[in-house]
Amino acid sequence: MMTPTITAFANSPDRGAGQARDMRVRWAFEEAGQPYDVRLVSFRQLKQPAHRALQPFGQIPTYEEGGLALFDSAAIVLHVAERLDGLLPCEPDARSRAIMWMFAAVSTVEPVVVERETCRFTENDKSWFMERMAMVEDRIRGRLADLSARLGDADWLDGAFSAGDLIMVMVLRRLNGSGLLEEFPNLAAYVLRGEARPAFKRAFAAQLAVFTEAEGG
Amino acid sequence: MMTPTITAFANSPDRGAGQARDMRVRWAFEEAGQPYDVRLVSFRQLKQPAHRALQPFGQIPTYEEGGLALFDSAAIVLHVAERLDGLLPCEPDARSRAIMWMFAAVSTVEPVVVERETCRFTENDKSWFMERMAMVEDRIRGRLADLSARLGDADWLDGAFSAGDLIMVMVLRRLNGSGLLEEFPNLAAYVLRGEARPAFKRAFAAQLAVFTEAEGG
Repeated sequence: MMTPTITAFANSPDRGAGQARDMRVRWAFEEAGQPYDVRLVSFRQLKQPAHRALQPFGQIPTYEEGGLALFDSAAIVLHVAERLDGLLPCEPDARSRAIMWMFAAVSTVEPVVVERETCRFTENDKSWFMERMAMVEDRIRGRLADLSARLGDADWLDGAFSAGDLIMVMVLRRLNGSGLLEEFPNLAAYVLRGEARPAFKRAFAAQLAVFTEAEGG
Repeated sequence: MMTPTITAFANSPDRGAGQARDMRVRWAFEEAGQPYDVRLVSFRQLKQPAHRALQPFGQIPTYEEGGLALFDSAAIVLHVAERLDGLLPCEPDARSRAIMWMFAAVSTVEPVVVERETCRFTENDKSWFMERMAMVEDRIRGRLADLSARLGDADWLDGAFSAGDLIMVMVLRRLNGSGLLEEFPNLAAYVLRGEARPAFKRAFAAQLAVFTEAEGG
């Protein structure tokens, strides 16, 4: 693999908390020991034709390597995981199950988590805000209860750490500060286990450095 | 591949409109010419331990083949697509882009589409219902506008029909009856193009037959 280039926010709205989706791709590269370059993109640039040619929805991250351009953080992680060691099991059935957890994370768990953020940002001035948030948080609890029951006292979702855990941990840690994760101690511990991995720490430091630098620090 | 078994609703809440997620897997099997068995599951069984062992979130479809059990419709479609011809290009870069569209469909487009359904089912008795629906529908329009711009006048998202189109068409056709798709004629035509495929028609007929039979027809 040639050194790939990804895009990230020039000024991340999460102030370096590692919630922007480039973090997922950075973490995957670190797990695989793959160097990468980063091109920073302003909010204005995100919506312009040059960036939309890479990412039709005007988001980050994107991935470029040789003639290949990809978007969608989970798709990029899977592309990387299929080409480098350290993110997917070799045994075919276990490999399919790890990829299944990637899809489950982004399509079954993440949407309710994102809905909470959308509600906070777009409905916090509405008369119905508190009642809506309670509905959304109950929906999140439903997903977390199911996931907690499946994880049980295992370290990871299916045997060894995989790209499935990487994406699931990143989805769950979007709930940091909400108090919801703490209602499911095994899920809170699972997220901490992910965050304790050296590859996570390196990726986190790299994205935080972008924010610190942008702040003139 | 041994004949796999999938699960589907014994009584689909969409009354055979092909919106339940087993339709995605059925369509993939039909594109690949792969016979499959179906085990029907009642709403009560969905939430019981035997089914949750296969699907921790208590949903359909699941996939069983030999010793392998999978859930998540897109993950199952990808598993099938990687093992059988007809759903993914052979060229590695094109293959990664097709998988990227699968992820984009379920994680960027589908959540806003599902939010509209959730809003209709859980907020239709609330004072704020009309205002909320307008917000959700504008969010959907934003995604559809981006997707419409990318598709342009092409038949499919990236060259030949792929599993990426299969999932995207299935996500978009959840908007049937909303009037939203018709605001983007190229997307409406794209969905019709998917529905016109012989494999789609066979899969649709198979899931409709389950509903018709359950109704005593």
